[in-house]
Amino acid sequence: MRTIIGVMGGAVASEETTQAAFDVGRLIAENGWVLLNGGRDAGVMEASTRGAHQAGGMVVGILPTDNVAGCAPVDIAIPTGMGDGRNIINVNASRVVIALTGGAGTVSEIALALKAGKPVITLNFPLGVPFTTYYERGQLYDVSSAEEAIEIVVRLLGEEHR
Amino acid sequence: MRTIIGVMGGAVASEETTQAAFDVGRLIAENGWVLLNGGRDAGVMEASTRGAHQAGGMVVGILPTDNVAGCAPVDIAIPTGMGDGRNIINVNASRVVIALTGGAGTVSEIALALKAGKPVITLNFPLGVPFTTYYERGQLYDVSSAEEAIEIVVRLLGEEHR
Amino acid sequence: MRTIIGVMGGAVASEETTQAAFDVGRLIAENGWVLLNGGRDAGVMEASTRGAHQAGGMVVGILPTDNVAGCAPVDIAIPTGMGDGRNIINVNASRVVIALTGGAGTVSEIALALKAGKPVITLNFPLGVPFTTYYERGQLYDVSSAEEAIEIVVRLLGEEHR
Amino acid sequence: MRTIIGVMGGAVASEETTQAAFDVGRLIAENGWVLLNGGRDAGVMEASTRGAHQAGGMVVGILPTDNVAGCAPVDIAIPTGMGDGRNIINVNASRVVIALTGGAGTVSEIALALKAGKPVITLNFPLGVPFTTYYERGQLYDVSSAEEAIEIVVRLLGEEHR
Repeated sequence: MRTIIGVMGGAVASEETTQAAFDVGRLIAENGWVLLNGGRDAGVMEASTRGAHQAGGMVVGILPTDNVAGCAPVDIAIPTGMGDGRNIINVNASRVVIALTGGAGTVSEIALALKAGKPVITLNFPLGVPFTTYYERGQLYDVSSAEEAIEIVVRLLGEEHR
Repeated sequence: MRTIIGVMGGAVASEETTQAAFDVGRLIAENGWVLLNGGRDAGVMEASTRGAHQAGGMVVGILPTDNVAGCAPVDIAIPTGMGDGRNIINVNASRVVIALTGGAGTVSEIALALKAGKPVITLNFPLGVPFTTYYERGQLYDVSSAEEAIEIVVRLLGEEHR
Repeated sequence: MRTIIGVMGGAVASEETTQAAFDVGRLIAENGWVLLNGGRDAGVMEASTRGAHQAGGMVVGILPTDNVAGCAPVDIAIPTGMGDGRNIINVNASRVVIALTGGAGTVSEIALALKAGKPVITLNFPLGVPFTTYYERGQLYDVSSAEEAIEIVVRLLGEEHR
Repeated sequence: MRTIIGVMGGAVASEETTQAAFDVGRLIAENGWVLLNGGRDAGVMEASTRGAHQAGGMVVGILPTDNVAGCAPVDIAIPTGMGDGRNIINVNASRVVIALTGGAGTVSEIALALKAGKPVITLNFPLGVPFTTYYERGQLYDVSSAEEAIEIVVRLLGEEHR
């Protein structure tokens, strides 16, 4: 069974966030993990797919739609037909979630992941008061580069296997 | 078709939050609206159900489980069998969402509601940076009493009918 | 907690099936139960809603869409945004399922209900070979009138309380 | 984007059905397609996974649970936490559905696939009256060997590309 790392983020993203998404995708592939994202051909989803592919990696896209129209060029497209109801699947299917700067959709995925007990790493996306306890207990991290995010994933996966 | 107001909040709640949930439930019922919550027999779900019933109101509970075990004494129990995947339904079924102080589950419902374009009123639960734009555009409000929350709902529903 | 009886059937229905759906709806309401259907303003969904309302009953509609456009005049509309993914909710929320003559959508609800261990009563809709064991173990019934269907529901609910 | 072929069937299966599931899995892999199944480590799901792996193929499992406990040794495990609500995803994610002899769960997937407009091939699993129109319009086929099932898939995929 392949290790799946989820990458969450919006369909609209700044140039900086888009670059970070690309780098995260590339590094996930270089580590031999599968990248999972929301599958749309825009923003963080498109950029992380491109990054993973540059490093020869595999991408799974969990789509809100019930068909592949508007899908990023992922390898495995899973249309759900469930709209943002698919966010819970993004989370349940990921061993670790990395979230780029985003809007309410991204925050919903961070929150669902934390509720499900998954580790979450945000990249330049410090969250406010409601998440304080998750930072304190070491389930939620905010980092400032793709490399730092991946270092944490490496450490978390290592701990699982001890 | 009855007007449905969603009340979100955790299974664990402080005494103050529990009282606020009761008051919100009571006021929803007094206004003739249907209260929708997550249906579990604990915390904000149990208290808001009790409040609505004291005022003779009706409560719909959208359950994470696939049966009614552990359900609050709601009038209409909808077991989904979808775990926190049911949060999207809580949101899609509500005209306005009122959220009490809560944890990651509650934040996920606030975020999903905002993404879906629904108005959200938090009660003593100011949210951080990721939600700033929603406050600014008047889709998200933080208030300090059940009465204030209901006043906003009245105004929002009035605007819909103009 | 109110007893919920699910009524399944297609958006396209013959005159005979439409009349049967109306009768089933009326009888469910006369027995004091809540009617749950798929909520669309067509076919069996529209007719069963009308029947229940003639007898002063309450109707819950579980919608495939994420809003109430195209909804039958149900009392409690639950838009899910999950397309036919909402069929599992129709089933999980019903104590007993009554299915009118229908197409693949209706058969999917019958099959999901049987899988979930719910009793299913079809009305002039005998099903083929794959369902033989469910007839034999008394979980699936085919009847030829709305009255017969309701008699079975009465008996099944009585047995639950013994 | 890889072509995904869904293989549906129960957690309990006869020796003959288990062998057919293995053969279908092997042939899907030999054709270079990805096999998608329900992901549990039993019956048709386990056997089709084994068949695909013998031919070096890739398997995606869409799990009812919210974690990978009890999962077949698939390559990409997608825990949904949605119980049989995940059946709609099995269907939406498959270009063609092949169904082995099964129970109500399998029939629900066949019915959902037909409703979604997908071609369905059953293997020694002729379905009754409610499905007659689907046979007639060439959306539903019953065959008696894995080889015949694959021949139809080849022809259907070919037609899409014309």
